[in-house]
Amino acid sequence: MWFTGLSGAGKSTLANAVAAAIHAATARPLEVLDGDDIRTFLSAGLTFTRADRDTNVRRIAYVARLLAKHGTLVFVAAIAPYAETRAEIRAASVAAGHRFVEIFVDASLETVTARDVKGLYKRALAGEIPHFTGVSDPYEAPTAPELAVPSDREALDASTARVVALLRELALVAEQ
Amino acid sequence: MWFTGLSGAGKSTLANAVAAAIHAATARPLEVLDGDDIRTFLSAGLTFTRADRDTNVRRIAYVARLLAKHGTLVFVAAIAPYAETRAEIRAASVAAGHRFVEIFVDASLETVTARDVKGLYKRALAGEIPHFTGVSDPYEAPTAPELAVPSDREALDASTARVVALLRELALVAEQ
Repeated sequence: MWFTGLSGAGKSTLANAVAAAIHAATARPLEVLDGDDIRTFLSAGLTFTRADRDTNVRRIAYVARLLAKHGTLVFVAAIAPYAETRAEIRAASVAAGHRFVEIFVDASLETVTARDVKGLYKRALAGEIPHFTGVSDPYEAPTAPELAVPSDREALDASTARVVALLRELALVAEQ
Repeated sequence: MWFTGLSGAGKSTLANAVAAAIHAATARPLEVLDGDDIRTFLSAGLTFTRADRDTNVRRIAYVARLLAKHGTLVFVAAIAPYAETRAEIRAASVAAGHRFVEIFVDASLETVTARDVKGLYKRALAGEIPHFTGVSDPYEAPTAPELAVPSDREALDASTARVVALLRELALVAEQ
């Protein structure tokens, strides 16, 4: 399950909330791969050019497939700004026999800029961070995600409940 | 379980033979991470300088820990030439609550050069491959591995049986 969206849209928050909510309802091991952590461990040295972003996304997807292969449910919280690359990792997951579920964590650029939890938008708008998604680099919003969550207009509890309902519907966690 | 040794010493062969041998004896999922494959997926662009080799080894170890965290038994077949780096990833594994077992796949440089399965030693000795372990780059042999396997003087079956016996002794697979 890949949570895609702008920086600050609430991808990690939602992924972790869903993980906590289903923890009791699934016997399957569960891993949350956070884009920021993954960069530290797998992609230090990569920049934010399109080629390097794609490499980063493919690496995360490779690790997710390895984990899924052995029965782990994997939630990835990472921007993954390019539609073509998301389509590619979806196809690779499906080819490996896994389900790929795209959750679009949809907060407007205005909202994430105003919130600016990590202070990055301010710096990006000042031109201090090149290739910043939504500011100086594109974000190609999903046109057909399995679920879109308007994280700037919906409470976290409600979003979490909708993702959990989807997981049950897809039989990725047990019905209760 | 990390299989370390020179290129061509038989690390992957032994790791895969052990995997096949214990497959029926363990209910745990099992993954063999091969250094060459991993480089393709996780470390494309890295060179064979000490810094880049260390980064590669740390990435493999990170992925191995992720898999081990969810109950997967992981066999890594990768040179990992530096003792200090092997000690570091051992410590990180132990800190994460996992067992780290080092298998030294010990074939002499003469043997692997004569065998030269991939034709790499010939090229390395001709100066065509910089930073080639054992030729133009160091290999720091383990001084206290959990097991040393003289792969140039012992049949694969015998080596496999010894690694399997160690796995049973460590209770990493069930007794039979």
